[in-house]
Amino acid sequence: MYTVKFLFDFTRDVFVRMGCSHSDAEKIADVFIAAELRGLPSHGMIRIKDYFQLWKANRINVKPDIRITHETPSTAVVDGDRAVGMVAATRSMEIAIEKALRVGTGWVSTRNSNHYGIAGYYAMMALRHDMIGICMTNANPLVAPTFSISPMLGTNPIAVAIPAGNQPPFVADFATTPIARGKLAVSEKKGEKVPFGFVQDKEGQPSDDPAILKSGGSMLTLGGDYEHGSHKGFCLSSIVDIFSAVFSGANFGPFVPPSVAYLPVLETKVGEGTGHFFGAMRIDGFQDAGKFKSSMDKWIETFRNAKPAKDREKVLIPGDVEREKEIKIRAEGISILPAIAKEISEIAGELGIEFSV
Amino acid sequence: MYTVKFLFDFTRDVFVRMGCSHSDAEKIADVFIAAELRGLPSHGMIRIKDYFQLWKANRINVKPDIRITHETPSTAVVDGDRAVGMVAATRSMEIAIEKALRVGTGWVSTRNSNHYGIAGYYAMMALRHDMIGICMTNANPLVAPTFSISPMLGTNPIAVAIPAGNQPPFVADFATTPIARGKLAVSEKKGEKVPFGFVQDKEGQPSDDPAILKSGGSMLTLGGDYEHGSHKGFCLSSIVDIFSAVFSGANFGPFVPPSVAYLPVLETKVGEGTGHFFGAMRIDGFQDAGKFKSSMDKWIETFRNAKPAKDREKVLIPGDVEREKEIKIRAEGISILPAIAKEISEIAGELGIEFSV
Repeated sequence: MYTVKFLFDFTRDVFVRMGCSHSDAEKIADVFIAAELRGLPSHGMIRIKDYFQLWKANRINVKPDIRITHETPSTAVVDGDRAVGMVAATRSMEIAIEKALRVGTGWVSTRNSNHYGIAGYYAMMALRHDMIGICMTNANPLVAPTFSISPMLGTNPIAVAIPAGNQPPFVADFATTPIARGKLAVSEKKGEKVPFGFVQDKEGQPSDDPAILKSGGSMLTLGGDYEHGSHKGFCLSSIVDIFSAVFSGANFGPFVPPSVAYLPVLETKVGEGTGHFFGAMRIDGFQDAGKFKSSMDKWIETFRNAKPAKDREKVLIPGDVEREKEIKIRAEGISILPAIAKEISEIAGELGIEFSV
Repeated sequence: MYTVKFLFDFTRDVFVRMGCSHSDAEKIADVFIAAELRGLPSHGMIRIKDYFQLWKANRINVKPDIRITHETPSTAVVDGDRAVGMVAATRSMEIAIEKALRVGTGWVSTRNSNHYGIAGYYAMMALRHDMIGICMTNANPLVAPTFSISPMLGTNPIAVAIPAGNQPPFVADFATTPIARGKLAVSEKKGEKVPFGFVQDKEGQPSDDPAILKSGGSMLTLGGDYEHGSHKGFCLSSIVDIFSAVFSGANFGPFVPPSVAYLPVLETKVGEGTGHFFGAMRIDGFQDAGKFKSSMDKWIETFRNAKPAKDREKVLIPGDVEREKEIKIRAEGISILPAIAKEISEIAGELGIEFSV
């Protein structure tokens, strides 16, 4: 078990040693730790290695000049200058919030960025300003459009955070696929099959093999098959891709660059780097803030009191699970798998800092 | 078969006879006809009767004073004054577009409205202004949150329309459930079962009975069951409900009023009428408009050229199916089921106008 403070300081130091400013490194560390605290370790410390290797391959810029290249009072395109994704994303969301302060809402599409961790982090940045936060990102292609076998889309998440009053905020953060990529890896390691509706084989036939991506298979969009509405999941994933990349001039669909250094940079590009999309809306752009929050409390209480199905305890409001995990993990400390701790320790050695396994 | 012109004029005349202005009645007729042309008759002429009965029950206002009650440069809340949904919605989307012209984007949440037909119509209004259009609405509760048996959400659709250049626009318009309500009725009439994942029984057990809603069952959110991501569908449906009703002060969730007169007005209300949400974003708020359109063309061409799965012809870009139907129906005319034509003819008789079956 590691304390939050230890892992935060360590992660900051890793990125400082790579050449990031102290302030940027703190921003990056905060997103890594948030993933661990919210019970999403697939986006936490395990990614230190990916970023370290991208840095060694000179595929990220630790001294980026992040700038607005185009704007209106409520919109902007940001060029991330190949920054660590968390740095480009934090700055982009700040710009969305600044615009919302002035004209009610702010909308930013960002190009030339990299993997940014958990989408929910940026959406939640809006909460402390009494704003609704929205965040999306495209990602390297693993998912096939309905009726196709070509992996052309990432798991393209959508996050929406909405402030409440006495109730905790509503925080949705979900991939536009039935499951996250990491769940396939877990099932594969356990030697288990997965339910039908998650993946298909190289011909587009239903499959329950979690390793099928290695033999030309692909993931399916939310809905699973056409009969159950996978074309709606395809719509959602496409919207995330277009808002993140066509708006900003990033690479879209099959051209999104890999977020790991062991996969080569693609030969064809249609834009710059990975793309994200950010939105901030002032709640008092619609209602008096106090009234908005008490309505939102009532919404949450109403849905929390829905009658549970047989053998189910209660309805979970989006954000409940992650919030409860955060309370527990903050108290108990963050656990890191021995194999990951070993990797991190080796990286620490290379960078001349300490990490005890 | 009826011509577009005949049905447009007839629908306009129906609403003029109910007391709507000529201009409002034309707006209403245009949305009815768009539903028929896009192959969505469940939102077309079949709804004339619902509106006629709501009017007789004095549950809609044919001379509404639709007004902005709260605003910032990029946001507004509109009070629909119990208008026919299409009138409140058209005006609300116009306001979103006007705001986008000035500050890049416009976002409107509307209360005190009624059923507004197809969401895609309002999203598509943005296209002719070189804007992206977004539209959502809540609806009367039929759908249970994940882990619950209480029908608390409507089929809450999301529509997003994005302009392209040489390619036709991207137009997604989908319910946040695996299927639309109408499909259950069709299966029931045919005496067929439905696939598991669409509905559950009154205890929350999986069901394949399309009539299960009549015995305490409920529809499921996109994803179907928890294992396949129904909680993500619940997130989406919740976001639609909150943006449409908490933002505007309309009724949310289980309090959304029925859109048919044979169901009584609910005793409890938490706001005014039904709620909608509208967004408009200028494409040149992000990129030079020409560049945006050519990028969007490239996106569409890339996905259209995805390799089809075995026994599938091609990938369908959102909007393809409806556009092809519109070409066919516009050429051949609109067909109306005899039972519906008979209903309409009786209504025409009551209003003193002609409709030959």
